[in-house]
Amino acid sequence: MPELRKDPIIGRWVIIATDRAKRPDQFMGQPDKPFEPQESCPFCEGRESKTPPEIYAYRPKHTPANTPGWDLRVVPSIAPFLRIEGDIDRRGKGVYDVTNGIGAHEIIIETNQHIANMADLSAEQIAKVVTAYIARVSDLERDERFKYVLVFKNYGWQAGAGRIGHSRSQLIATPVNPKRVKEELAGARAYYDYHERCIFCDLVKQEICAKERVVLDIDGFIAIVPFAPRFPFEVWIMPKEHSCDFTSLAPLQRLELGKILKKTLLKLKIGLNDPPYNYVIHTAPFRRPKAGYWKSIDQDYHWHIEITPRLTRVAGFEWGTGFYICPILPEDAAKFLREVEA
Amino acid sequence: MPELRKDPIIGRWVIIATDRAKRPDQFMGQPDKPFEPQESCPFCEGRESKTPPEIYAYRPKHTPANTPGWDLRVVPSIAPFLRIEGDIDRRGKGVYDVTNGIGAHEIIIETNQHIANMADLSAEQIAKVVTAYIARVSDLERDERFKYVLVFKNYGWQAGAGRIGHSRSQLIATPVNPKRVKEELAGARAYYDYHERCIFCDLVKQEICAKERVVLDIDGFIAIVPFAPRFPFEVWIMPKEHSCDFTSLAPLQRLELGKILKKTLLKLKIGLNDPPYNYVIHTAPFRRPKAGYWKSIDQDYHWHIEITPRLTRVAGFEWGTGFYICPILPEDAAKFLREVEA
Repeated sequence: MPELRKDPIIGRWVIIATDRAKRPDQFMGQPDKPFEPQESCPFCEGRESKTPPEIYAYRPKHTPANTPGWDLRVVPSIAPFLRIEGDIDRRGKGVYDVTNGIGAHEIIIETNQHIANMADLSAEQIAKVVTAYIARVSDLERDERFKYVLVFKNYGWQAGAGRIGHSRSQLIATPVNPKRVKEELAGARAYYDYHERCIFCDLVKQEICAKERVVLDIDGFIAIVPFAPRFPFEVWIMPKEHSCDFTSLAPLQRLELGKILKKTLLKLKIGLNDPPYNYVIHTAPFRRPKAGYWKSIDQDYHWHIEITPRLTRVAGFEWGTGFYICPILPEDAAKFLREVEA
Repeated sequence: MPELRKDPIIGRWVIIATDRAKRPDQFMGQPDKPFEPQESCPFCEGRESKTPPEIYAYRPKHTPANTPGWDLRVVPSIAPFLRIEGDIDRRGKGVYDVTNGIGAHEIIIETNQHIANMADLSAEQIAKVVTAYIARVSDLERDERFKYVLVFKNYGWQAGAGRIGHSRSQLIATPVNPKRVKEELAGARAYYDYHERCIFCDLVKQEICAKERVVLDIDGFIAIVPFAPRFPFEVWIMPKEHSCDFTSLAPLQRLELGKILKKTLLKLKIGLNDPPYNYVIHTAPFRRPKAGYWKSIDQDYHWHIEITPRLTRVAGFEWGTGFYICPILPEDAAKFLREVEA
């Protein structure tokens, strides 16, 4: 019998298609478009002139900006979806609402090596990436025009990336709060109003106790296959201790996050034949009531990373309903990933 | 300068990436996986034994069920995502909600000819498809276990269809109201509460007056590119007169709908090199307060069809925010489609 499961945070129903369930090995081997050769890569060391000037870099003090010697660089997108210059101008057009496309769009070049998959970086290098995320998000928070920054990664053509095989992630700052984040905040708030507890904290406790959906449990972090995933082998990484704000991570925690992120991505790579994937970091928005205020988001929201391998196609039913159909039992996906040696 | 536009019904923001905008002809020519040869098609006339027994058919009275002579057939899905037998059993699992996967999953075989794209059926044949939708949805409404039926179509492999080149659509009845439909209902209700008018009616009037996003205006229906589309060349078909319920369409209106649907799909096929696409029908849910009740959905909701060609990939930013990035100005997409001879 198939099962309908509800995501407890945003209330999305997912069909767990047990009758049509596939074995984990049936998800493998769909080849993605190949990467372009390294010769044309604009993100390698020595090609600094191929990108806009760097905004942030991890480099020895004696090396000037935009020259070799760096370990990590952040540059504006060469083709940004939003523009950094200008004032917000919200206006109506009859029944419609418009605002001009003010925002920031930056590329985090995660390594000076031509390595495609973040899974192949060291945990220490990934910790530097996390530090770069925090530095950039904190800097953008000072810009009063922005309400949110989404940090995300597209790996592989099927996941929406270009064909450059150099590990990188992106961030986009927006002058409005995204719908998906607002839904999570509203769901977490409703739960807190009723229970006076953070729903994510309850979920972490239940998962640690049940074990069946846990992929990794390392230091202060846990990686689980969610109870009602949208996609097969979707994995969420969450801090075990309550925290609404990704940027509050201490240096030691950044290294712990680097370890669990590397290991999770490596399990996906080894177990599923290097699939295309996306990840997003969901953290509390900037302009929130600070602690001490009545019902602060700090108490009811919990930052986390959602990793979604792209192994299936999304069709009319999903677009039309917001329902998803997951063709593998989440518990089986977790067991499979747990057992992959990485 | 890019523009942020808000969908007035569900509040989703869309980035209109004017700086990275493509010309309409740049969306063409991405080849989809080819269809399988006709020999293996289970939906052709004479192969009735290859499908489960028919639930509904358009056939002369003297022809027995599941034999040749039909013009259109509806059969249960051979691999249904939900099961028709059983009672709804809603239960909790700690913080999680589960229900067993009760529902219906049916295939509407739209023609006895081996024609792949609905665009190539006659308007009269499409009117029969509409009649079949109405008959099946009305029948399923009598089943008290179901709250909603989504009618949808996947055309082409990239749109989530299999590789059988025989025009068909699907319906799935669910025991819960889908999130996406609830969002539309809530958005339409909020607008009605404030204005005491249907938001879709206001939108239709504004579009007819502005003209720039109208693709087709035929009899009682209008086809427009929405103001804040998720996808390039997305088209919505709406009745000009207020109606919340798709199944209330009179026979003459079904033919009018057949005409505008055929012409819209043909414009997409000719103008964009036969792209994969999805469509969904959004209509009011079954168990609603009927007219005469306080604030009936009948007054504030408006059924419509959303057609989404699959020409772009959805990446981390979209999954993470619920934002979409539309790489063509909706007004340019509408102009392009208006000018395609079909």
